[in-house]
Amino acid sequence: MATHKILLLPGDGIGPEVAAEVSKVLAWFTRAGIAQFETETDLVGGAAIDAHGVPLSEAAMDRAKAADAVLFGAVGGPKWAGVGYAKRPEAGLLRLRKDLGLFANLRPAICYPALAEASALKRELVEGLDIVIVRELTGGVYFGEPKEIVTLEDGQKRAIDTQIYTTGEIERIAAVAFDLARKRRNKVASAEKHNVMKTGVLWKETVTRLHAEQYSDVGLEHVLADNCAMQLVRNPKQYDVLVTDNLFGDILSDVAAMLTGSLGMLPSASLGAVENGTRRALYEPVHGSAPDIAGQNLANPIAMIGSLAMALRYSFGLLEAADQLESAITRTLAAGTRTRDIAGPGTNAVGTTEMGDAIVREL
Amino acid sequence: MATHKILLLPGDGIGPEVAAEVSKVLAWFTRAGIAQFETETDLVGGAAIDAHGVPLSEAAMDRAKAADAVLFGAVGGPKWAGVGYAKRPEAGLLRLRKDLGLFANLRPAICYPALAEASALKRELVEGLDIVIVRELTGGVYFGEPKEIVTLEDGQKRAIDTQIYTTGEIERIAAVAFDLARKRRNKVASAEKHNVMKTGVLWKETVTRLHAEQYSDVGLEHVLADNCAMQLVRNPKQYDVLVTDNLFGDILSDVAAMLTGSLGMLPSASLGAVENGTRRALYEPVHGSAPDIAGQNLANPIAMIGSLAMALRYSFGLLEAADQLESAITRTLAAGTRTRDIAGPGTNAVGTTEMGDAIVREL
Ligand SMILES: CC(C)[C@H](C(=O)O)[C@@H](O)C(=O)O
Ligand SMILES: CC(C)[C@H](C(=O)O)[C@@H](O)C(=O)O
Repeated sequence: MATHKILLLPGDGIGPEVAAEVSKVLAWFTRAGIAQFETETDLVGGAAIDAHGVPLSEAAMDRAKAADAVLFGAVGGPKWAGVGYAKRPEAGLLRLRKDLGLFANLRPAICYPALAEASALKRELVEGLDIVIVRELTGGVYFGEPKEIVTLEDGQKRAIDTQIYTTGEIERIAAVAFDLARKRRNKVASAEKHNVMKTGVLWKETVTRLHAEQYSDVGLEHVLADNCAMQLVRNPKQYDVLVTDNLFGDILSDVAAMLTGSLGMLPSASLGAVENGTRRALYEPVHGSAPDIAGQNLANPIAMIGSLAMALRYSFGLLEAADQLESAITRTLAAGTRTRDIAGPGTNAVGTTEMGDAIVREL
Repeated sequence: MATHKILLLPGDGIGPEVAAEVSKVLAWFTRAGIAQFETETDLVGGAAIDAHGVPLSEAAMDRAKAADAVLFGAVGGPKWAGVGYAKRPEAGLLRLRKDLGLFANLRPAICYPALAEASALKRELVEGLDIVIVRELTGGVYFGEPKEIVTLEDGQKRAIDTQIYTTGEIERIAAVAFDLARKRRNKVASAEKHNVMKTGVLWKETVTRLHAEQYSDVGLEHVLADNCAMQLVRNPKQYDVLVTDNLFGDILSDVAAMLTGSLGMLPSASLGAVENGTRRALYEPVHGSAPDIAGQNLANPIAMIGSLAMALRYSFGLLEAADQLESAITRTLAAGTRTRDIAGPGTNAVGTTEMGDAIVREL
């Protein structure tokens, strides 16, 4: 049996709590003889700042490069609000994305039937919702240079960020979206602001050309990012796969996630290019570090456990194990087990560890 | 009686139809002896491209500079999809904003009680919603240079957009937000991405300093733009005044507008700096040119007529007339008059002209 090398980076806030539940699931798969894992754990974000003075140590970066998959919890919190831009907790995550070449961020937004009531939207608008945001993750305004603050002669400051995209960067993320759509409802919406941004002009032009040349069997629609945000609120089920740049993807995927009423349930995968049959990958919950509820056994571990399911599927080729884990999650929910975030008013809620245990029991 | 100089720029799509209803209202105020207007009309957007080959002629620009207020309909449509970046219809609007120095875009998002049902959100989340997005309108990625597409040696293209903000630009828009909040529920939320963008770092720092120095009586909260988009969906009533940059404002104000269920009803004001007691200003509906329903007497003119009410108040100092017009709109709605966009299923809808006539009758 192959051994799958995992780097676990729990991070800050509720990160360590939800990561602990993933470890339970990994242990169960090993005990059951289904798979073998070699798991290393390291620090990232505020925890790494406290220990090493940087949000990601070189040793942790090397481990991430050597791993078959990285499982990431969450980073950040008020404790590190004053550490300065270069050393802020988020820089650890951004470095992982960039240095591992994880250009494709897949963020499913699924509305679990049992949870449709938890959405801010009317039930009929979100029930059965199942879309995937494909977000470009290593380009755009996140990494473009110049990115700086300069002091002018009159004492004022001027800050600059630069959004850059090349044809190649746009093609490879669009290809991920089209390939994914072919396995789903076969339609892609591409969001940009070509009416204001030159990167939007190149984005639209490149997606259109790639579509005509290689994916003309897939439905394609172009939508302005501002209108897309509106449409997500008005009628999210009109979409299947939605591809967009790093910054619009940040916002649109958060809107989509919030619509589902299941924010604590949504996993995500960040994938690199396929090289020699393998690809680098990082899996993380869509939710953040939630410092306000950290350490209280209140967090929902399902997004993190669901991220492991994505790793089983996309990185380890353990498709059956992935299905098994996802259906254990579904059964646990169907049995009425709820953490606080998804418990209706007046319903009993279980803690983080109890939810993890319940899922392992269903396995 | 002073004569107020208005430049009416109906534009494209439903723009001319909703602008015609504004003319009826202006005529009523003149007939009633309440105010005197000198109204010029000119072309903008696709209509100007068709006539002059550019989305805004120099003559129209000069008229805009000479007017006390510009009333703008909407621009754009599939007809002009191929005209090229520099001449696209939107460039006319962007030039008006930039050359008139309209740095402060006020976008109220109000949920009219009679229309709460039309929102995608559950009624209790939006009923009574009344927030204002204060969007910076002449800076950021919309106007920063370099903004270009270059062809690289290998035939690939590279597109660049530049987001720039100076201390002064941030201070003046934040001051607008704080001043406005003092007349409302006295709290401001400021949205940026300081965890990723240097402009976000400067934004947060500048807003924080201005608040401490001049507005410490106003509540201030900083929120990341992605989280803000989520919060708008989860619980929009937590906000009062929301201040943000040009690009985030574009998206967040569209989300906020859509939440209200009253997209066809929302006006906006774009204001310049006060100089010698006056300020340049442009008023426009939040909705776009809606080419799909243009020319069919289906559009809702209320956003455009409401924009005139904002002009009466902010540009002409006709506070009573503004109140009178707004309450005529409210009474018309209360009487059950509905255009198609806000008519419930099974309800009779009136056309654009009938809605305009009904509002004039209520006056
Ligand atoms: C933590 C932060 C840097 C990050 C981002 O902006 O990409 C987060 O919001 C996300 O969406 O993963
Ligand atoms: C038409 C377009 C250029 C404009 C913008 O992006 O600012 C519009 O979306 C708006 O919000 O007024």
